[in-house]
Order: sequence, then structure tokens, then C-alpha cells
Amino acid sequence: MPVTRPPTRFAYLGPEGTFAESALVSAVAAEEGTRQPAPSVAAALAAVRAGDADAALVPMENSVEGSVPATMDGLADGDPLLITREVFMPVGFVLAARPGTQLADVRSVASHPHALAQTARRLTELLPGIVPLPATSTAEAARQVAAGELDAAVCAPIAARRYRLDVLVDEVADRSGAVTRFVLVAPPGPLPEPTGNDKTSLVAVVGDRTGALLELLGEFGVRGISLTRIESRPTRERLGAYSFSLDCEGHVGDARVGEALAALHRVCDDVRFLGSYPRADGRENKPVTDVSTDAAFAEASTWLARVRAGRP
Amino acid sequence: MPVTRPPTRFAYLGPEGTFAESALVSAVAAEEGTRQPAPSVAAALAAVRAGDADAALVPMENSVEGSVPATMDGLADGDPLLITREVFMPVGFVLAARPGTQLADVRSVASHPHALAQTARRLTELLPGIVPLPATSTAEAARQVAAGELDAAVCAPIAARRYRLDVLVDEVADRSGAVTRFVLVAPPGPLPEPTGNDKTSLVAVVGDRTGALLELLGEFGVRGISLTRIESRPTRERLGAYSFSLDCEGHVGDARVGEALAALHRVCDDVRFLGSYPRADGRENKPVTDVSTDAAFAEASTWLARVRAGRP
Amino acid sequence: MPVTRPPTRFAYLGPEGTFAESALVSAVAAEEGTRQPAPSVAAALAAVRAGDADAALVPMENSVEGSVPATMDGLADGDPLLITREVFMPVGFVLAARPGTQLADVRSVASHPHALAQTARRLTELLPGIVPLPATSTAEAARQVAAGELDAAVCAPIAARRYRLDVLVDEVADRSGAVTRFVLVAPPGPLPEPTGNDKTSLVAVVGDRTGALLELLGEFGVRGISLTRIESRPTRERLGAYSFSLDCEGHVGDARVGEALAALHRVCDDVRFLGSYPRADGRENKPVTDVSTDAAFAEASTWLARVRAGRP
Amino acid sequence: MPVTRPPTRFAYLGPEGTFAESALVSAVAAEEGTRQPAPSVAAALAAVRAGDADAALVPMENSVEGSVPATMDGLADGDPLLITREVFMPVGFVLAARPGTQLADVRSVASHPHALAQTARRLTELLPGIVPLPATSTAEAARQVAAGELDAAVCAPIAARRYRLDVLVDEVADRSGAVTRFVLVAPPGPLPEPTGNDKTSLVAVVGDRTGALLELLGEFGVRGISLTRIESRPTRERLGAYSFSLDCEGHVGDARVGEALAALHRVCDDVRFLGSYPRADGRENKPVTDVSTDAAFAEASTWLARVRAGRP
Repeated sequence: MPVTRPPTRFAYLGPEGTFAESALVSAVAAEEGTRQPAPSVAAALAAVRAGDADAALVPMENSVEGSVPATMDGLADGDPLLITREVFMPVGFVLAARPGTQLADVRSVASHPHALAQTARRLTELLPGIVPLPATSTAEAARQVAAGELDAAVCAPIAARRYRLDVLVDEVADRSGAVTRFVLVAPPGPLPEPTGNDKTSLVAVVGDRTGALLELLGEFGVRGISLTRIESRPTRERLGAYSFSLDCEGHVGDARVGEALAALHRVCDDVRFLGSYPRADGRENKPVTDVSTDAAFAEASTWLARVRAGRP
Repeated sequence: MPVTRPPTRFAYLGPEGTFAESALVSAVAAEEGTRQPAPSVAAALAAVRAGDADAALVPMENSVEGSVPATMDGLADGDPLLITREVFMPVGFVLAARPGTQLADVRSVASHPHALAQTARRLTELLPGIVPLPATSTAEAARQVAAGELDAAVCAPIAARRYRLDVLVDEVADRSGAVTRFVLVAPPGPLPEPTGNDKTSLVAVVGDRTGALLELLGEFGVRGISLTRIESRPTRERLGAYSFSLDCEGHVGDARVGEALAALHRVCDDVRFLGSYPRADGRENKPVTDVSTDAAFAEASTWLARVRAGRP
Repeated sequence: MPVTRPPTRFAYLGPEGTFAESALVSAVAAEEGTRQPAPSVAAALAAVRAGDADAALVPMENSVEGSVPATMDGLADGDPLLITREVFMPVGFVLAARPGTQLADVRSVASHPHALAQTARRLTELLPGIVPLPATSTAEAARQVAAGELDAAVCAPIAARRYRLDVLVDEVADRSGAVTRFVLVAPPGPLPEPTGNDKTSLVAVVGDRTGALLELLGEFGVRGISLTRIESRPTRERLGAYSFSLDCEGHVGDARVGEALAALHRVCDDVRFLGSYPRADGRENKPVTDVSTDAAFAEASTWLARVRAGRP
Repeated sequence: MPVTRPPTRFAYLGPEGTFAESALVSAVAAEEGTRQPAPSVAAALAAVRAGDADAALVPMENSVEGSVPATMDGLADGDPLLITREVFMPVGFVLAARPGTQLADVRSVASHPHALAQTARRLTELLPGIVPLPATSTAEAARQVAAGELDAAVCAPIAARRYRLDVLVDEVADRSGAVTRFVLVAPPGPLPEPTGNDKTSLVAVVGDRTGALLELLGEFGVRGISLTRIESRPTRERLGAYSFSLDCEGHVGDARVGEALAALHRVCDDVRFLGSYPRADGRENKPVTDVSTDAAFAEASTWLARVRAGRP
């Protein structure tokens, strides 16, 4: 195994000052390299594929700032990439303004339309009568505030810090607790070591037959593997085929997960492995039953060898 | 069965001039009633729940203009609502300007950030050097063009018509063929009649056990029912529970679908029926096998009655 | 429901004095009617079909005296019959002789070849040097002893009593604990009432496809029903078909069992219901899970009716 | 691999002149070794285990002459043995007498009680008024006829030849077409080479849980393997456990069968491999689907190795 240099040049879904940058900072120590915002998920992934970045941090689920389908599709199509890490980032919007500004002084407010949608009720209460303006991103809104073009922005805490704004109201989402799941994506290379609490992501394409999904999931079920996410995806190009984006518990290096993936490789029209990486949502995988441990697989393999040699 | 007045007051995800309005127009003859834009999916659904609208048209999948999770969650939570119709709408962006404007004259362009993302490459080719501006919606961009505040908008054809703009370039999406699925949502009431080519939507909540999803899907599989969509959904409130949003082929009035749903009602922690309605994606359901037809269920029911009466 | 006269004329697999008669005596109070031995299982079943007997007691599993396949096939083919009861009978062979005979006096011993096989080692110890003789039944051997034609018989306790023989050695089976399961078979008619601890028997014929058995068993599995016996049976007449003889827990009057059987009726090439009757092997059925009770089915049915009426 | 001497000393379920000897003769060329009748299945298996015989031929299914459960249990318990061959033998009874005897001269007839049961109707027609006598085996009846102790015997053709009897009536079974399946059983040692049309036999013990059998069969189903026989067996010693005797298509050397057996070894309480051997019932295994071939497994294994090495 060649020595692998850790990634030092990171791309992320920009612009600067959004939750994606926060997630990248939380995932990678600040001093570890350079961080380059990309205008879109596709651009971030393209930078990795082109070798212009060593890894890219992009949103996968439940995102506010960007489009998850773009990540799903961007990983499913094109040259293979690997998820090496997941990062869960609370999406806590703040209302930020230039230092010295009071809430009562605010006459204009802006943010990304999605953020405006998620804070609509609170903004009406806080800033009655003010029609919020759109911005291309929450961070751009913050930048405009810093530049004096606007009075206030709905943005991420990191944007407030970056543009030296004060936080007027700390938590302005109408519904608290939103979290976005980001993934760090790298070119093919050595997988993260199993930690005992890992996830594996993949995309599987199956024929459009009754029961095809059931068969696919059966390959996990018989091996005692739990799914943590499943989503059917439209397959643009191929009529009569269904594509599923899946996360399961475990690492492809685990015997049960490896055998399940090999089975999928056989029975599906197509399987793309997207990576095995430490689980980071603060939950523990379900305990692996005795019959599904690596030891159980190894023992069964030894037994089978004996049986085949006529020494049962 | 009481006589049911057809809906006449429609809400839709606004603003006016977006694809949602196009979809509503295509679903409901123009003269059939009033159309009221709502500022959000939640607002559109709330209007129906409050009795302020008879039905709401909201995006469900793959949307450009709005947030699909908002629809999923909006239907899964709160008072029950029923999907009575689905509408598939091609998402074809145009570049529109005031009559007389030439492409070479365009100095500013705006749209909703999502639309800008989906047309970024083409805009760079068509309008090199011009930085696109954000708008709260594609239609709002068109309005601004009509008002002379901007030179061009990336918007839906319906917005160009509504604001009497000329289409400078007809198809400016970087990737063609995008389609959004909208659903028409009404208060509880008589279901659409089975047509022989229907879909049924539901949300099922199951405990977080290995194999729980497999069991859930088994209820469809044993009755010969195909799924057309499945998506695991995070359940905010309930740790240890998983929620799945599903569409299957068939109508709840079909014996096989009815029995499957009743089974889910038994084995799941919770099931919410979201409607049975004609399939509208231009595809045909897979043929129902002989053993899964209503006639087969009726015959089996008759046989069982004989068996229970001791006359096998 | 017409008043049903309980059966009073019983046939059983003869001859008199075998375990089948013991089982019949244990199943039916002595004074309850007449008992007629039949020369074969087929003859006993034919007597019921012809109306010459009201019920027949025949061995089903693990028999010593007779052929179980004869019962399986005899119930699966021909006019329908119903199992109304099962009886488990310990098969405890005794060595019997005329009163006054000592073990040391015994110079000849006989029994049915199966009984001789099951007592071979003990007979060699008890009666060294004596070659056992065959008889057409264990009871016939006892009769020959009573008639003075032989010195000793290996037979059932009931035969020793019937022919007024003394038991020289009480338990002469080489391996103790054998039990034969008998069933009482009647013409079609009202089923035994559910007792809460019942079994249901059936024969199912499925096409010879990979996975056909799995599908069949899936109908039980999804409804939380346990099997207590399964046996594939060769189907003489029909190439490409497989026949399975099954017992499951529960009564066809139970909602879950009824729905499972109706499903089998749909998906199998053929299903023959053989009866629901009290479990008599001294074990309790596994507890019915909350989601599989009659109440759960009834509640689901009510829910489905509401859903179909548009009142979810 | 050491050179393996083929077996030369054969035991079989005796006595001489029964269908088991016919089956052995058909399985092994006459000159190939010695053939020793054993008084019981248990004795035949014990001879192999003790090294007194190289192999034993015993009935497995549908037998007339002997007890199939004895074979099932004899293989499931005790030191491991391997089935190396199966032989299907038509069970065609003849009515045999000394040369010169006419049917009208016959005053006495004997056979094993099972054979008498299977020929009862025909014997009544052919020999009205004559009560058949029991013998310990069909061959013993033939010997008695040859010895002049009886006039006629119902026996196997091989017994008539062996005792130089004439066949008075060629086919006297009431129901024609009966076939017994015999198996040749050897000590552990090199398995028969795969032929492309093989069967594999095993015994699996599972806990007494609802769905345990379904899980067991799922291991075959997901790998595209068909069962040809299944039978639940009472487990004497272990309450709360179920034992299944199974035959499936394919050879343990096949990737799909090997992986399925290894899986059973993991998930079952106990699995005993009973052998892989050429299918001999005149049928062909179902075609192996493309996704279940050895090539497909090998390709999937290669793919998995690449994935694990980070080169998807």
C-alpha cells in the first residue's frame, strides 16, 4: 500500500460563509490546507475529478443551502468518487447586522429564498412590514450587509463572524433542530479504516420488475444489515430501470457488508460503491448479531472449506 | 354517497407565473374556478385545511421552484389531506426580455437561485461577463423585467406570457428533460374513481429494527404490488422510528392494495393514507397478475367462507 | 346452523389391539359409539367417505404400525375430509405372554416387522438365541400368543389387555419416548370451535419454480403465523408441480389464518384445507403478536373502510 | 489430494433379494466388490462408521421395504457420513412361485406386511379366499416359497431370480409407478465431482421462532437455489428447536451453494452437510440464472476486492 498523502486542498459548496464552510471547518482542522468555495455541487465534484482539489465537501441530505439531488446525481454519474466522511451541521440561522445596529433600526433584510422561507414567520414578527429580499446565498446577504447595501441578513453564524456582523437574534428559524448532512468526497483511494461504527453508501440500479426492490433489500436483510437511508431516484437515461440511493450500517471491509455488496453486484443491473466512513450523526449502529460478525463469517468459511474437502 | 361539488377555489405554490401555475392550468380547465398563489407549500396546504381553498397544487418531486420536503412533511403532519391528482410538468426555462430587446442588449439577468444554477453554463455562453442576480422566484424576475428593473429573466414560459415578454432563447437549461411532479391536494372526501392505471401514496412509520423496511415492503410484495417511489424520511420528533414515503401502483379500492394497506396499518407504528389517483407520468402500471386481481381476491374470499363453514 | 349429531360410528386403522385403537379410546369416551377396525388407512378413509363410518382415526406422523404417506395421500386426494382432532399416543411396546409364563420359558416371539426392528437389541438381550417371527400386526402376534400358537408377543399394552396376556417386560423399545400422532377424520361439516390453541392442516400445490416455496411460506410469515410441520410430497400425476403438506398454528376462523389461506388459494395452483382442531401435543402455540390478533385485523379493516370512503 | 481407493465392500438394507439389493446392483457394477446385507438401516450405517463396509445403500424416501425415518435420523445423528450417490428404483412387485406352479394351484401367499398392503386389492382378485401371511421381508417370503414352505410370494423381481422362482403375475401393485429413492452412504472423504446436475443434502436445526424457516429458506432464495425436498423432523432431545431435512439443486462446490451453506452454518443452531452427488431422478436442475453462476460470483468477488482496495 503506497503512502497516501492526506488531502490538503478542499473544495466546498460555496460561497464562503455558508453552512458548508462551517461543516468543512468542523471536519478538518483549520490549519490543514486550503479551502476553495465552488459555485455549485457539480463544480465542487468536478474540481476533485479534475485533480484541482483533493476533496470536496457537499450537502447530501436535508440541505438548506443547496440541492441534494445534485449531490446524489453527481456521485452516481461520472468518474467514481468516494465519500470518506460525513458531517452533520445544525442549521441555525441568525439575524445579523453591522455592529451598533438595533433591531428597531432594520429597514431591509435579505437571504437565500430557502432561508427566507424557513424563517418567514419569525421575520414577520421581528420585522413587521418589511419585505425580505432575495440573495444568491445566505453569505452573500451577509456580505451585502457588511458592505452597507442592506441592514440585516439571515445567515449562518460563520457568515456573521466572517463579515464581522453582530448577531441581533440568535435563532430565527421557524422550526428549530434542522440539521444538514454533508459528505466529504475524494478520488478513489484507500478507504477510511473501519471504526466499528461506520456507514456505507451506494447506488443500485435494478430492472423495473415487481419485487426487484424487495430482492435488493433481501440481500441486506439475510445478512443482518440495517439501512439508514433509502431513496428511489428517477433514472433519466434508462426507461424500465429504477435507481436506489442507499446508506447501510457497517463498513465494506466487514464480512457481512462485503458479501451483501458482492451479491448486489451480481443481481443488480449496476451498483456503484460510494464509500464507507465513520458514522457521525451521534448514533450507534445497531449491535451486530452473533451470526453476522466477522468471526462468524470466518468460522463459516472455514467450515465450508472443510465440507468441500470432504471433512465435515 | 352525497353529491360532491368539484373544487372551484385553487391554491398553488406561487407566485403567479411559475411552473406550479402552469401545472394547475394544465390540470384544471381555465374556466373552472379561481387560482390563488400561496407564498409557500405550507401556506397552500394550510389554505386547504382552513377551508380557504378547495384544493392546492404543490410540487412533490424534483422541483425547481420549491421545496419537496415541505410537501412531504406538510402532507405527513397536520390534519389529513388527500392527493386527488398528479401532474407532470416539463421544466423548460426560457430567457425572456421586453419586446424589442436583442440578446446583445442584455446587460442584467435575474432568476431564482435554483434556476440560475440550472442554467449557469448556458448563461455564461449567452451573456458572457454578466453576473446573474437573484430573485425570490423565476416569476418575480420576469415581473422585474416587465417593470424595467432588469433586462432579462430566466423563467417559465407562462411567466413570459403573463408579463408580455419575448422569449429570447427558448431552452436555456444546461440539462434538458427536467420534469417536476406536482400533486393536487384536497380535504378528505370521496376518492377519485379507479381508472385501472392509478397510484396510491402513503407515509408509513416503523420501528428502527433491522428488517423493518423489508417487512413493510413484503406486504406489497406478497400481494404483487409494485412501488414507484420510496424515500426514507427523518422523523424529527421520534427517536428510534423511521418514516417512509411511498407510492405504489394501484388504487386503494383494489382488493390487493386495500389488503396491503390494512396490513401496514396493523404492522406499522403509523400509516397515513395520502390518496389514490390516476397515474399521469405517461407510463402504464405493470400488468396485474391473475392471482392478484379483484376477481382472484373475491374468489378466494368465497372459498374461505366455504372452508370456514366446513364445506371445503 | 343445523344441529350436528356427534359421530358415533368410528373406524380406525386396525387390527384391534394396536396403538390406533388405544388412541381412539383415549380420544373418545368408551361408551360413545362403535369402533370398527379397518385393514388399511385407505379403507378407514373410504369408510368415512362412503358414510359407513362417522369418523376415522388414522396415524399421521412417526407411526410404527402403519404408513404415514397413506394418510397424507389419502387426505390430499379423493373427496374432501376434515381433521377434527389430533391425538398423540406414546408407542410403548411390551413383551406379553399367557399368564403363568416366565421369561425363561419363552421359546418363540413374534410381532410386526417394524416393531421387531424397534426392539431388536432388547429382544436379543432378553431372549438370546431366539429368532423373532413376523406377524401382520402387533395385535395379531398377541392373538397368536393367546391362541397358544406362540409363546410371546411384542405388542401394545391394549393388546395385552384385550387378549388377557401378562406383561413380562414393560418397556422393550430400544429407544424410548416414541410417540405417534393420530388424527380423527370426518366428512365435511362444522369445524371444531377455536380454543385459542389450535392447529390448521393443509396441502398446497405450487409450480416448480425457484422461490415458489419461499413465496408460499411468506404468506404465513407476513401474518405472524408459525408452521409446526412441513413436508414436500412427490406429486405423482403432475410433472412440474410440488406439493407441500403443512400444519400451522391457529384456526382458520382466526383472521390471520383465514387471510393467509385465502392468499394461498390465490397464489398456489391448488390448496386443500384439511382442518382446524385443538392442538394436542402438550405444547402451547407461540403468543400471537399484537399486530396479528383478530382485534388488530378488525381494526385495520375498519380503518380501510374509512380510507376507502375518503375519511382517513 | 491423496489417491482415493473406490469402495469395494458394500452394505445394504437386507435381506438379499429386496429392492435395496437391486438398487445396489444398478448403482455399482456387479464385479466391483462384495455386497453384505444388513438387518436394518442403523446396522448398515454402523457398518460404514465402524469401517466394516466402505459404503452402504439405504432407502431415503418412499420406501416399501424399510423405514425412511431410520435413514434420516441415522444420517443426522452420530459420526458424519456422506451421501455420494442416489439411486431411484421402481418398486414393481411380482407374484412368484416355484417353476411349474400355476396360479390356480396357489393355496398360500406371503410377503412383508407393507407389500401386502400395497397389493391387497390385486391379491384378492388373483387369489380369492386366501389370507396372505406375513414375512419379515419380501425376500424372506420368496425364500420360503423356494423352500417349499409356501406356494407364492409377493416380492421383487431380483428375489424371484435369486430363488429361481417363476413370475406368475408380473405387476401386482394396486397402484403402479412407485419408486424408492436409495442413497449410497460413505465415510467422510473427497466429494463426487460436480457434474452440472447435482443435488446437495443437509440437515438444519433452527430455533422455534416464527419466521425461522422463512429465514432459512431465504438463504437459498436470494442465491437462486431451488429446493427439491424439505421435511420438518421432530427433534427428540431438544425442546424449542426444529430440524429440517433438505435437498437442494447444485453442488456444494458451486459458489452459490457453498455461500448458502456457509450462511446456514452462521444463522442456524446447527447444520450437518450430508453430501453433494449427481442427480439421478431423470430430471434436470433448473437453469442457473446468469447472476448465480460461478462466473458471476467470481466476478463479484473481484469487484469487491477492488472496492475494498479503494479502486471501484
